[in-house]
Parts: sequence; C-alpha cells; structure tokens
Amino acid sequence: MIVTLLTDFGTADYFVAAMKGVILSLQPRALLVDVTHQVPPQDVRSAAFTLLAAYRTFPAGTIHLCVVDPGVGSERRPVLVSAGEHFFVGPDNGVFGYVYDAEPRVRVFHLVNEWFFRHPVSATFHGRDVFAPVAGALAAGTQPTSFGPEITDYRRLHPLRPTRSEDGGWEGTILHVDRFGNCVTNLTRAELPDEEVARGLRVVVNGHEVRSVRRFYAEEAGHAGEVFGIWGSAGFLELSVNRDSAARILGVRPGDPLTAEAG
Amino acid sequence: MIVTLLTDFGTADYFVAAMKGVILSLQPRALLVDVTHQVPPQDVRSAAFTLLAAYRTFPAGTIHLCVVDPGVGSERRPVLVSAGEHFFVGPDNGVFGYVYDAEPRVRVFHLVNEWFFRHPVSATFHGRDVFAPVAGALAAGTQPTSFGPEITDYRRLHPLRPTRSEDGGWEGTILHVDRFGNCVTNLTRAELPDEEVARGLRVVVNGHEVRSVRRFYAEEAGHAGEVFGIWGSAGFLELSVNRDSAARILGVRPGDPLTAEAG
Amino acid sequence: MIVTLLTDFGTADYFVAAMKGVILSLQPRALLVDVTHQVPPQDVRSAAFTLLAAYRTFPAGTIHLCVVDPGVGSERRPVLVSAGEHFFVGPDNGVFGYVYDAEPRVRVFHLVNEWFFRHPVSATFHGRDVFAPVAGALAAGTQPTSFGPEITDYRRLHPLRPTRSEDGGWEGTILHVDRFGNCVTNLTRAELPDEEVARGLRVVVNGHEVRSVRRFYAEEAGHAGEVFGIWGSAGFLELSVNRDSAARILGVRPGDPLTAEAG
Repeated sequence: MIVTLLTDFGTADYFVAAMKGVILSLQPRALLVDVTHQVPPQDVRSAAFTLLAAYRTFPAGTIHLCVVDPGVGSERRPVLVSAGEHFFVGPDNGVFGYVYDAEPRVRVFHLVNEWFFRHPVSATFHGRDVFAPVAGALAAGTQPTSFGPEITDYRRLHPLRPTRSEDGGWEGTILHVDRFGNCVTNLTRAELPDEEVARGLRVVVNGHEVRSVRRFYAEEAGHAGEVFGIWGSAGFLELSVNRDSAARILGVRPGDPLTAEAG
Repeated sequence: MIVTLLTDFGTADYFVAAMKGVILSLQPRALLVDVTHQVPPQDVRSAAFTLLAAYRTFPAGTIHLCVVDPGVGSERRPVLVSAGEHFFVGPDNGVFGYVYDAEPRVRVFHLVNEWFFRHPVSATFHGRDVFAPVAGALAAGTQPTSFGPEITDYRRLHPLRPTRSEDGGWEGTILHVDRFGNCVTNLTRAELPDEEVARGLRVVVNGHEVRSVRRFYAEEAGHAGEVFGIWGSAGFLELSVNRDSAARILGVRPGDPLTAEAG
Repeated sequence: MIVTLLTDFGTADYFVAAMKGVILSLQPRALLVDVTHQVPPQDVRSAAFTLLAAYRTFPAGTIHLCVVDPGVGSERRPVLVSAGEHFFVGPDNGVFGYVYDAEPRVRVFHLVNEWFFRHPVSATFHGRDVFAPVAGALAAGTQPTSFGPEITDYRRLHPLRPTRSEDGGWEGTILHVDRFGNCVTNLTRAELPDEEVARGLRVVVNGHEVRSVRRFYAEEAGHAGEVFGIWGSAGFLELSVNRDSAARILGVRPGDPLTAEAG
C-alpha cells in the first residue's frame, strides 16, 4: 500500500518523520514515498500543481497525503478524496483543485469521525494528528465512507486553462518554476494545436518575447542564452534556456501573466 | 523492522546512502525512514530535540539511528540504547539525553564488539562503519547484549526544564526554531498550569514582550506581525506570528534565554 | 529488490516522485533508496564520484538509477550496465565512468527496445519515460539482454588517478567538496604508500601548503583553523579543518589542481 507525502514542512524538522511514524504505527506495510516537502510555505497553488504532475505515475490505489495547510486549526475542513483510482487526504483548501479538474469521477468525504484521529489533536499539527492517522487507517483497509459524510461543496481552484483574448491569442500564466529555472506555463497542446504552432508561436512575458519552440533542451540551434519554448514533461509549454535559468533571464515568478499567439 | 535515520550529513553527499546500503545488506527487509539529515553541523542538542519530538510516533521496536558526532574517531563511546519500547544507536555524546529524561526504563550498552563493525573501520565515518552495521544487525535479530557491556555513566544533557526564578517566574530558553520561524521554548504545561495561564502569561525574550496565548495559527485576533504564544505540537510553548517568522521578528536563535511569568 | 536513485533534480519538484511512481507501477515490491538529488545541475563528474562512493555498500543485485543528463533528448545513448554484482541505468555520458574503472567485469547494453519505455516519451524527462521504466522492468525480472544490444564503445571518464610529475611527486585534483567543507582529493594509498607518507607529505593547492596527516577529525594536535590531510571514508586523501570548512579556508572548488610529494 503506497502512501505519498507532499507538504511545505521542509526536511529540517521532525514534522515529516512524525507523520510517517503515525502511518507506520497503523499500517506497518505502508510504502512511503516523498513527493516533496519543499512547497513554498503555505502556497496551495504550487502544491496543487506538483500533485497534478506527480500523482498519475503512481499505481491505482495509491494514497496521496497533502498537507499544505495555512488554515490549520481554523474552520477549513479536513477531507478524503476518492478520484479516479487514487485517494487523497488533506485540507479542503484547493490543494486538490487540479485533481478535481483532471478526474471525471470524484467523491469527497468530510473527515468528522474523530475516532480515527490521534488524541489529543494539537492546534498546530493536523498533519500528524488528523491527516496521517486517516491515511494510515485507509492504508490499513478502512472504507472511505467510514471517515465522514460525502460533501459536494468542496473547494476548487481557478482552472488551469488560459483564457482566449479578443484578438484571438491567449492570456495565460506561469504555473511553476523548476530547479533548473524552466518556467512551466499553463498553455497546453489542447489550446495550441500543432497546425497553429507550425506557423510559429509568439509568447510575451515580462516584456520579453519568445518565438521558437524546440524539441529538446540540447538542440544546437539558436544562440547562447536564448529563451525557447518546449513541450514539457507535465504536458505544458515550458520556457527554457540551454544550461541557464529562463526564470532569471526573463525575470519571472510563478503567477506572472503572459500572452501567446500563433503565427 | 523500521530503522529511522537522524544525522547532520545533509543530503548532497553519499553519506546517508552508504549507511542505508550497509543496513540493507544486513537486513534486506528493513524499512528505512529519514527523520532529518539537516541538523546544524555537530549540533548535538538540536538533534536531541528533534529525536525527542519524533521518536514516540513510531511503533514499538523501531530502531533510531542518530549520527551527529563531532567526536568521531576520538574516545567518545558508541552506544546502543534500549528505552521504553524503542532502540537507539549512536555516539554517547548527549544526543540521547532527552530520551533518557523521558523514558523510565533505560539500558545503555557500550558497543565494543568489533565483530559487528564494517572493516576496515574508517577514522571519519563511523555512521557507515560502526553505527549502521549495529543497527542492521539489531534489525536482523541480534540481541542488544551481544554488542557490548551495559554501562551506567552514559552522557546526559542539562535537563530541558526551565528553572524557577526568585520572583516566582520562570527562566527558560529557545530550544528550536522551525522552518516557519516558530520558536519552540522549553516551557510546558507542567510548569504553566491552565489556571496560571488563564490569568495571562508574559514572556520576555531579547527585549520583546509576548503576552497573548492563542489556540491556533489562523486565529484572527491581534494585528499583523504580532507575536503570540501557542501550545505547539511537541508539547512546548511556541512563539509564532501569522504568516511570518517569529524568529526573525524577535531576533532570536536556539539557545537564547527567556523569562516567563503568569498574570 | 533495491533501486537507488541519483539525480540532479533537486527535491522541490515532482521529478523524483514521478520516477518512483513509474518504478512502483512496474514492481510494487521495489525498495527505493535516494542516494542524492542534489548533484550540481548537469555535473556528470560529481555524480560519477558520488555513485562510486555509495554503490558498493549496497547488496548484490541492487539497481542504481542515475539521471544526470545534460544531453536529454539528444543523441546520447541510454544504457543499462551490469558491473560486478550491481546494475546501473542512465545516460551514456560518463556518469558510470568510475564504476567501469572499479569493476573488472562490465557489460553495457544500449536501451533501444522502446517497448519498455513510457509513451509518449517526452523530450525533456527521460528519467521518467526511459530510465525509470527500464529500472522497474529490470526490478520485475526482465533480463538485461532484453533491453537492447551490448555495446563496447561506451563513454569513459578521464581516470581518477593522479599523474606522476617529473620530480617524483604527484599532480592531482580536488574531486569533491562535501557538506562540511572537506575537500576530497584523488590521491589514494596506492599512490602514497605508508612508508612514503611516514616521511611526511606535502600537498599544495591554490597556494596553500598542507603538511600534516591525521588519524581522525577530533585529534587535538595543531592550532585552530589548521588544514590537515586525513584518509577519508571514500578511500581518498581529504583536506579538512576541525569544525570549519577547508574548502573555504583554501579557496578551492571541485576540479582544482593540486600537487603532492612525500618527504
């Protein structure tokens, strides 16, 4: 039984280990996999993107524990999500928003059955006292319906999709900047079909214009330091530079707007 | 058989992997869990705190391998500790000091039986050559008494508890600063019973006064940037700020002194 | 079945988790161990050193997945290596160069059988789409010969060994700087036998002279801040300072040259 963990806890504190100890106490056969614990503190949207990019590579039945939880202790609801063949446990604050968009069949349960929690429940660490115990019980065979009632007013995110502008172009955004400085946009091939891109693509972000789309990083065309577009591994257009950081050269950060047009 | 690892080795080098390889060579079924490898280099007290906060969430029988070892190669003794239902392996330099305070039944064994070591034993990496082999052998079923004689003069730490000051208050310290800048003090509810705190609590640290104690981070009272106290997940009073770093605002670091008084 | 992972992907993105999900989808019993994901971006030589220092502590049959791949998507070949009792999967760019030097029996297979890949194969993330699927299939029992033809013109690295200088000394290099600032050189006891070192050893690097070789870090001889040599855990002479960074004091980086002479 695989349980993945995605948090903004960092790896210097005892937080992640405490959650793992709780899970293993309930299901000693759990196979624990870290997605990342380096989500920018309290950045729900970044966590939602990383989860979207990672979860589908895992086998059916995997439980994804996601604790990026700026509202810990307040009235935001703890939830368990059954979507496609995966399970998700965490706060109802939008962290599962992109999963909801991606999966046709979604059921969300409000975690109200405190019998499954670790007591006393601390005010500040529901990762250890609420979410990890539920993930552990789920991994041990408890049915999703045991944890609480199904709800339908769960928290969604503004969709990932870019919007069509009046002149026929697209208005999009930078979703994510990875370790190498590649800038992941929210443009997909669904919006930019091959026949349009074949006529050329012009992306403008922070006053910089990007015109070429390449097939891979090491392609030798272009001059050093040139920013180019590339269809990235998460399915989105990324802005990249050979052996340098496109984010630094373009001066952009996650959330920054961009425009794109074919031709 | 769960083996946790807690070191100051960082994660950029081969050190942690080498220890894991040694353990898995001795017990291929070992379930390895990282606590953290980001302990500040050679900071035994920080490691002792993190271990204290993490170990009790793990199931009985877990082996905790802790290698923060400024005296590697010198005459500090390698030890195996049996405390409560957990095992601990590492140097006898105080890293298990808070476990000794927390557990009523403690037995400490001096690791002198070199048969269990990895040979040749390097001068600089007892994590790989002494501690990991012992943890692996223990995980494979070797009895604690096989590794060496029991000792009673093992190294303790100055207790975590604050001291009572002449005016009826407390003199304490900052134990730890976490990723979010929360400052964990050594004040617990045992020193500060609810009836006293109900009359108010005044904590002074680095010239700053903290007067309010909240129930959770997201509570809406108070002005932005206000530092407040909160009973944290490790059982201690923490000094926190909503969405900001209390450590930065207060200008404090682990080890800094504080005073507290009720009323 | 143990699979280790060594990359330059960092731990903030979804990259490592995506590879693990792919492996576990093919072999749910795989035991995954991170070596490091903090290799300096695209630094093949650093990855090769870390792999060399780590792999031999793992049991026979371990699969080492190494993705430091500046040429992803270009014509560099993906390979599977059988060497000694270990397997290695990654790009043919020298990352396995030190393994080739260390193991007498090496077989290298060019991964051309696309049946084993994850489709569509992205242009930018062969870690997920080529190397992880092959590692997963290998862990699930597929024979190495199934993945493609054996090749002999695989990419080697300039040997680790220092060269003899005309005056009887050695010309070497700094291989690696670890978290503590210890500088790992490429000098081994094979070049510097005990009888020569017994007469004294003089290492010059970046204008600094290092003359003493110690047995362990905590040895009390010498003044504070003095750089000394020590036989390190990876089998090489390291330049170190008690409780300080030798790399900072010497002002050296990986790749910097040094000279050494006995006497």
